[in-house]
Amino acid sequence: MAYDVFGIENPLIDLLARVPEDFLARLGVHKNTMTLVEQERFQHLLKALEGMHIHAEPGGSCANTMLGIAQLGGKTAFCGKAGGDAYGRIYIEKLRGAGVSPFISTDGHLTGSTVILITPDAARSMNTYLGACQDLGAADVPLHALRESRRLYITGYLWDTAGQQEAARLALRTAKAEAIPVAMSLSDPFCVHRHKADFRAILREHVSLVFANREEALALTETDNSQEALRALRDWCGGAVITLGASGALIAEAGETIYVDAFAAKPVDTTGAGDAFAAGYLHGKSVGASPLQCGRLGAYFAARVIEKVGPRLEGDVRAQLAPVLGSPRA
Amino acid sequence: MAYDVFGIENPLIDLLARVPEDFLARLGVHKNTMTLVEQERFQHLLKALEGMHIHAEPGGSCANTMLGIAQLGGKTAFCGKAGGDAYGRIYIEKLRGAGVSPFISTDGHLTGSTVILITPDAARSMNTYLGACQDLGAADVPLHALRESRRLYITGYLWDTAGQQEAARLALRTAKAEAIPVAMSLSDPFCVHRHKADFRAILREHVSLVFANREEALALTETDNSQEALRALRDWCGGAVITLGASGALIAEAGETIYVDAFAAKPVDTTGAGDAFAAGYLHGKSVGASPLQCGRLGAYFAARVIEKVGPRLEGDVRAQLAPVLGSPRA
Repeated sequence: MAYDVFGIENPLIDLLARVPEDFLARLGVHKNTMTLVEQERFQHLLKALEGMHIHAEPGGSCANTMLGIAQLGGKTAFCGKAGGDAYGRIYIEKLRGAGVSPFISTDGHLTGSTVILITPDAARSMNTYLGACQDLGAADVPLHALRESRRLYITGYLWDTAGQQEAARLALRTAKAEAIPVAMSLSDPFCVHRHKADFRAILREHVSLVFANREEALALTETDNSQEALRALRDWCGGAVITLGASGALIAEAGETIYVDAFAAKPVDTTGAGDAFAAGYLHGKSVGASPLQCGRLGAYFAARVIEKVGPRLEGDVRAQLAPVLGSPRA
Repeated sequence: MAYDVFGIENPLIDLLARVPEDFLARLGVHKNTMTLVEQERFQHLLKALEGMHIHAEPGGSCANTMLGIAQLGGKTAFCGKAGGDAYGRIYIEKLRGAGVSPFISTDGHLTGSTVILITPDAARSMNTYLGACQDLGAADVPLHALRESRRLYITGYLWDTAGQQEAARLALRTAKAEAIPVAMSLSDPFCVHRHKADFRAILREHVSLVFANREEALALTETDNSQEALRALRDWCGGAVITLGASGALIAEAGETIYVDAFAAKPVDTTGAGDAFAAGYLHGKSVGASPLQCGRLGAYFAARVIEKVGPRLEGDVRAQLAPVLGSPRA
């Protein structure tokens, strides 16, 4: 097989800029939150940043996970839609440079982007413009590459436009025909509320491993406690992971329920914690680790990621995760 | 059966006094900690409190649990050794008044006691004198009452003196002969370190349900994570509960692993949290609740207890725990 995991979702380029405190007020940016913005507003923000140093990094939830798996030594592919602009080219190059095989078609729109304004107090104020991401369609899915993958990974965010849904559904049908197991992240609680019926149907029919945080899991299963949510997700999918933030994580796999302690961490920015958990977990599965080992790798990866600004670790990630990379292969 | 749960351990009378801040320094009391003290020091403290209002309440870990079960409507007995002094009489009267059947023999020593000094900043500084508690012996165990009980509950603290151990071992042998299931609390991490080999043997041979917090569980099983500790305890006992503080609790019962969310709480004093959890859990078992229901009752009881000073709730406890007392019987 060419790839351990094939992911589909939004190629969002993170544009990070350090700005003075008064920049936020001047541009009417809500501090410490993520706001979805339209094209006009996005371009207004970019114009205001002209002349400042902007650091461009591939981002987006699914891409973060594919990059995390690549850092652990796994082979991943990432499919999505970018714009035909410079940011689209940078995204694809950086993805390839980081060891993720890009299957990213481009069109005439702007590449989706998250403008991240970092003020001197280390707060992050995020403005996401989905742009070309929303143009993804069934024709953009490289079925040959998917067929050469050991696992498909999709996210709930794909349900927000009809075209992205079609792409996801084609990938799911193909995976089913090829007996490729599917993992899915529920993405965020709002996304779950928007697509509850669809997500339930998808989980039952296509997904063998679901990732959710506690809030997403309770929303989808309409229960008031993690254990009952886990049982419902397990009954639908067979495998389920519920991340519990600083309280650890719960896993249901192979008929067993497993609890994973959170590792001690001094959090400075929780962005990307769930993506890192999924990366560790999925890589563990690729190398044949036990569910507990998979969970510990995910939890430790997440603990290290939240100790720095941004959704990813830099440098030799395997060395940084050595305390839980027990076997030479994991 | 006369009793749902028969408990044995230390009848320690809690003596609570509100003292000015400088009282601690004047008497060399360590603030915010529990210190074991000898008789001379204990009497010195009592003398210094003369003339102040002292509130006397039955305390001690196991008694707290028996009192909690009684508050929930369960029938409990409590066995231990008190002194022939006024505090011993107060302890026995208060226990009986709270609905717990006392099987407390007395001797010529002083009743064990925890002097709890509450300063104006709400800090609790505790000084425990074990006194007569340590004189408990096999002859003090009312075997007729134990034989009329549905469950025996013991704690690790009983292993600290030879006489208490003999009493505990007689109770264990009797329970085994009568097929009465035994639950045990590991008490505290230091206690686990002192008696590791004994505790392991007792769990394997006599105990079908063990209560431990995370630190105690890791110490006894010599593992570095809750899941492996739970597996080891389950393999030894069949049933195991690991409380995880603000992260909830883990249960292994009937071949199943169950996670219980912590309930939201604004903690002011965590004294008695584990005792309350055990009370809720054991009462749930008495009334035929599922392991998840038992755990939720324990977790909710603990959440309410840590929101007040002292190890117990007052007033109508069933009304206060109504949100998790789902069925009319539980």
